[in-house]
Amino acid sequence: MHCRRCVKPKRVSPNAFSKITDHGCILADSLPNISQQQLHHTPPTFWLFYLKPKLTVLHLHPLKPTFTRLGSFWLLSGRSAVMAEHMSQSELDYPFKLLEYFNGFRVSKVIFSACELGVFDLLLRSQEPLSAQHVAQELGTSLDGMERLLDALVGIEILEVEKTDGTALYSSTDVANLYLAKGSAKSLHDMIVYQSQTIYPLWNNLVDAVREGKNQNEKTFSLPAEEVFQAIYRSEEDMLKFMGLMNSSWVLDGHDVVTAFNLSGFQNVVDLGGCTGALAREMAKAYPSSTVTVFDLQQVVEVAQKHFSQENDAIVFQSGDFFTGEIPTADLYVLARIIHDWPEEKCLTLLKKIYDMCAPGGGVLLVEAMLFENRRGPIMTQLFSLNMLVQTKGRERPPSEYTHMFNKTGFKNIQVCRTGKSYDAILAIR
Amino acid sequence: MHCRRCVKPKRVSPNAFSKITDHGCILADSLPNISQQQLHHTPPTFWLFYLKPKLTVLHLHPLKPTFTRLGSFWLLSGRSAVMAEHMSQSELDYPFKLLEYFNGFRVSKVIFSACELGVFDLLLRSQEPLSAQHVAQELGTSLDGMERLLDALVGIEILEVEKTDGTALYSSTDVANLYLAKGSAKSLHDMIVYQSQTIYPLWNNLVDAVREGKNQNEKTFSLPAEEVFQAIYRSEEDMLKFMGLMNSSWVLDGHDVVTAFNLSGFQNVVDLGGCTGALAREMAKAYPSSTVTVFDLQQVVEVAQKHFSQENDAIVFQSGDFFTGEIPTADLYVLARIIHDWPEEKCLTLLKKIYDMCAPGGGVLLVEAMLFENRRGPIMTQLFSLNMLVQTKGRERPPSEYTHMFNKTGFKNIQVCRTGKSYDAILAIR
Repeated sequence: MHCRRCVKPKRVSPNAFSKITDHGCILADSLPNISQQQLHHTPPTFWLFYLKPKLTVLHLHPLKPTFTRLGSFWLLSGRSAVMAEHMSQSELDYPFKLLEYFNGFRVSKVIFSACELGVFDLLLRSQEPLSAQHVAQELGTSLDGMERLLDALVGIEILEVEKTDGTALYSSTDVANLYLAKGSAKSLHDMIVYQSQTIYPLWNNLVDAVREGKNQNEKTFSLPAEEVFQAIYRSEEDMLKFMGLMNSSWVLDGHDVVTAFNLSGFQNVVDLGGCTGALAREMAKAYPSSTVTVFDLQQVVEVAQKHFSQENDAIVFQSGDFFTGEIPTADLYVLARIIHDWPEEKCLTLLKKIYDMCAPGGGVLLVEAMLFENRRGPIMTQLFSLNMLVQTKGRERPPSEYTHMFNKTGFKNIQVCRTGKSYDAILAIR
Repeated sequence: MHCRRCVKPKRVSPNAFSKITDHGCILADSLPNISQQQLHHTPPTFWLFYLKPKLTVLHLHPLKPTFTRLGSFWLLSGRSAVMAEHMSQSELDYPFKLLEYFNGFRVSKVIFSACELGVFDLLLRSQEPLSAQHVAQELGTSLDGMERLLDALVGIEILEVEKTDGTALYSSTDVANLYLAKGSAKSLHDMIVYQSQTIYPLWNNLVDAVREGKNQNEKTFSLPAEEVFQAIYRSEEDMLKFMGLMNSSWVLDGHDVVTAFNLSGFQNVVDLGGCTGALAREMAKAYPSSTVTVFDLQQVVEVAQKHFSQENDAIVFQSGDFFTGEIPTADLYVLARIIHDWPEEKCLTLLKKIYDMCAPGGGVLLVEAMLFENRRGPIMTQLFSLNMLVQTKGRERPPSEYTHMFNKTGFKNIQVCRTGKSYDAILAIR
């Protein structure tokens, strides 16, 4: 019997499983042949055992293995597997999963803080693993604090550590280099800064948001609750942060949502509220014969051109207010994460305005994170919907609500595409 | 081929796995026989397949299944399994796990806020499932906000929902009733309130804590960084909250740590900094012939006796300051989560004072969450150690550091016991 994914098989005696407590838990001490070391090596290990079938699902310490019965087999999965398990009897014995949830905010802040301090950028630039002392010195932090931060990042497998001559040397993983360092083409750095500095404090007032049913811009930042984008764009610095957030998320999902449907038939595309142009650039890349225009508030267009413009940019910018002013004509309007900011009435007014400007055969590509129809998930979208409560006047919706709004404003041919990632797409044709 | 844990087996055609992308991902669309519905039923499903072994580990949407190769078998695990997976190639394709980490603070706040609003207490009291409208009305919140909160709690499986005559009716799980409602003997309510209202805002300043290497009581609450317990006990209300936190955690781990060693030989036990007496009561229950005394600051003892005393209490209270004053004589001193609040020098002074009061054969039961010697985990303890940075002048340590301190002050016979839960124990004998 050995681990099937280890280079060096670890042999485990079946006798090791003999000490079982009354409520079905294997005591850690009764697994003498599985050392901590063996249970923590990366990549993760899954053992498959054939044992006498007398146990049901067992749960141990979150850092110790979990046993799941699969017919006459036992699946022994190490490490964070417990995090993934559903609430069950064992959770009643000891609430490992609940405690993980309670610690969620700490895990977020560990990553966010390392990002804000520049840990991932330094490790990417460095050609070799660095000591905590080196990192602390370069980034101007305390050694003690940096050491604890780096170790926690190792604990969640975002960094790696090796010991050389008694000194712990830290290096980045490919995942951290790709998403957490600033320079990378897929960097989520700006998204993280926004979440850490704006969203995290807003969520400290979730109780009041639920109680009052409205956003917490006033309590959190002394900003008016009514004027959502006045709050978001309260200074050029804050505007830049928000635009960085938007930019980051299209780096991840942009290609998938613009290719959710074949849009090559639309010549003239206008991205309403297109912000930095990140999604419009994905559109221009996927459909090189189309003309793609970003339409946004004048101050947004100015900041976009100043901070996010590209050489030989394939897109153009046009400024205006799609609520109070006119919108340009187009064959296809893109509405990406616009509708979710507003209550239904305001959305209907905007969709009607688009419908009136749209020639028959033209349409709207709506991009949002969409709830399941039964609203039981996806959990990320449920959390986004609470975020809309805390920060805006909107919500996340299931596809049927968007379809309903489209139908109500006259659009006919409506197709829904779930991408399987964070954002989904709906194509509605006039 | 069918799911082995479903009441009604779901048949899946092996042909469904034929569409595989270049980098080894099965496209969601190419799994026509596994509907979203099938993938979301509770309890969780694990399918075991025998397939031609041409795939490696595959990752899909976090709410879609994961395929893991186990020799000639495939393990298909649904739902949150992706959350548990280690960083790997697939994370480079799309960072599902990273996004889960980013959302950690939202998940924490969803549970915390529901607790603070009394959702779990109401659902426990109610004999039947309740509509969002009913819950909102009873708790004086907005319907919209409550609906989103309840749905997110369903998404993380802390609540359940069923639809009756078109109305969604929510009910609690056993786990929520046991740990999240206020009345239960195992309630973590007070721990949650403390984490939500005190720890969460403190962690908003983690960047500064790492930079400065000191706690953030001043920046967060305008309280002096030097006087840790002056900050924690800044008002009777705050003292009560902190004492509630302490009480909660011994409800979970108290029995395990007092029975980590056979302590029945110690007649006279003093719990230094014993707070509400929760751990001392576990001690008195496990060793009914021992006398157990809680020793703590006068104001703490007063609040403990006023708010946490029990009828026919098996323990006694004595007030004093173990740093500035004298400590009572005892056969066994308990130091539970005391040492981790302070720098080594102060700990050594305290241990020396205890050693001097301790007769040969007497000892110390030290209770802390202990790091692995290589400091790569447990992640919960690594997070606690950062918490000590943010809130106190202390840290979490591996067993060897405690052993070192004990040796340095003269204690000889030192045994370490890891409980496999949150807190571990060391017994040191003079």
